Amino acid sequence: MSELSRASGVSVATIKFYRREGLLPPGVAVSATRARYDESHVRRLRMVRALVEVARLPLSVVRDVVTAIEDHSGMHEVLGTAHTALSRPGASRPGETPTTRALQQVDGLVRRQRWRVHAGSPSRAALARALDAYDSLGRSMPVDRLDVYAEAAHAVAAADVAGVPDDSREEAVEYAVVGTVLSEPILLALRRLAHEAVSARRFRTTRRPRD
Amino acid sequence: MSELSRASGVSVATIKFYRREGLLPPGVAVSATRARYDESHVRRLRMVRALVEVARLPLSVVRDVVTAIEDHSGMHEVLGTAHTALSRPGASRPGETPTTRALQQVDGLVRRQRWRVHAGSPSRAALARALDAYDSLGRSMPVDRLDVYAEAAHAVAAADVAGVPDDSREEAVEYAVVGTVLSEPILLALRRLAHEAVSARRFRTTRRPRD
Repeated sequence: MSELSRASGVSVATIKFYRREGLLPPGVAVSATRARYDESHVRRLRMVRALVEVARLPLSVVRDVVTAIEDHSGMHEVLGTAHTALSRPGASRPGETPTTRALQQVDGLVRRQRWRVHAGSPSRAALARALDAYDSLGRSMPVDRLDVYAEAAHAVAAADVAGVPDDSREEAVEYAVVGTVLSEPILLALRRLAHEAVSARRFRTTRRPRD
Repeated sequence: MSELSRASGVSVATIKFYRREGLLPPGVAVSATRARYDESHVRRLRMVRALVEVARLPLSVVRDVVTAIEDHSGMHEVLGTAHTALSRPGASRPGETPTTRALQQVDGLVRRQRWRVHAGSPSRAALARALDAYDSLGRSMPVDRLDVYAEAAHAVAAADVAGVPDDSREEAVEYAVVGTVLSEPILLALRRLAHEAVSARRFRTTRRPRD
């Protein structure tokens, strides 16, 4: 176990904790006090630690991902479980029920974009809640703006998914979850930087407006 | 003042507070106990309240925006002040100094995209810090991925800026700041929804990978 700790960079105490929590399978016992661990344990440990420490997912949710992997689910199902874990209500904002109107906006968008999305997808509800929050200030997101956003999101997602390694489900999950979480601040900062550039083009030569 | 409160939806106590803080100009005194307020006060109040309550900017930062407006700055300068307010260090994450390497990544990107961006722009530093956080986990954002992100961000920003009203600087600031803040959860939810759709296309038909 101390070799496993060295290979994975995870402390022995944390490894024991993950073992007790059922997040790491046992090694093969070679004597009363020693067990053999292999490369699959190292990959699992790295994934679990990334989900706990970087994505800050609760252990119960990490266990769902581990269960999906141990059930020999296919890559799509495993990644789906990971995505569900990331977008569950309460992850970033309270899980209020979205309005029917917002859900219809989302479903219209999904149809126009020809996206294949589960009706029970937490991202669908999360998007509807975000639209409700926007609308609650007396604004309404224009449909054509939402379509521009969706196409931009699709281009980003296509680049992300193309980079997911497909030779181990643990590595794929770690890559997808950590990559999504860590690149969100990058995307938001890029958008603000682009605002500055586009705003300069529109307003820099404008005379002072009437006020 | 009670009429101003009705017209703006801001309580008299809050109006008095904003007056003391210098965020709202005085009305024109018509008697010892009455002052006349006009449409410009209503617009200002709505903007100040949106910056304080929706964008959760500290009063000192709101005051910078008000000062830019009262200095008769042009639209670009006023919006620039508002953007700076939004992206100031500490707004969302600690203001560590970004590494030179990350700043060079940002500057390379800005050149490739032909964006006009201030060297002192807080979005530039915010993006560099986000890249540093990404790299700190032993990953590195590939240049071509970052370019895809930047083009998506540009498309989003162009749609946003096209919608900014240009007849009052207060309305433009309120629209730009509140629109940016409220649409961030929409963009992040859209990206996760797009992940699901793109991932389905790539992985749904795949056989279970070796593991």
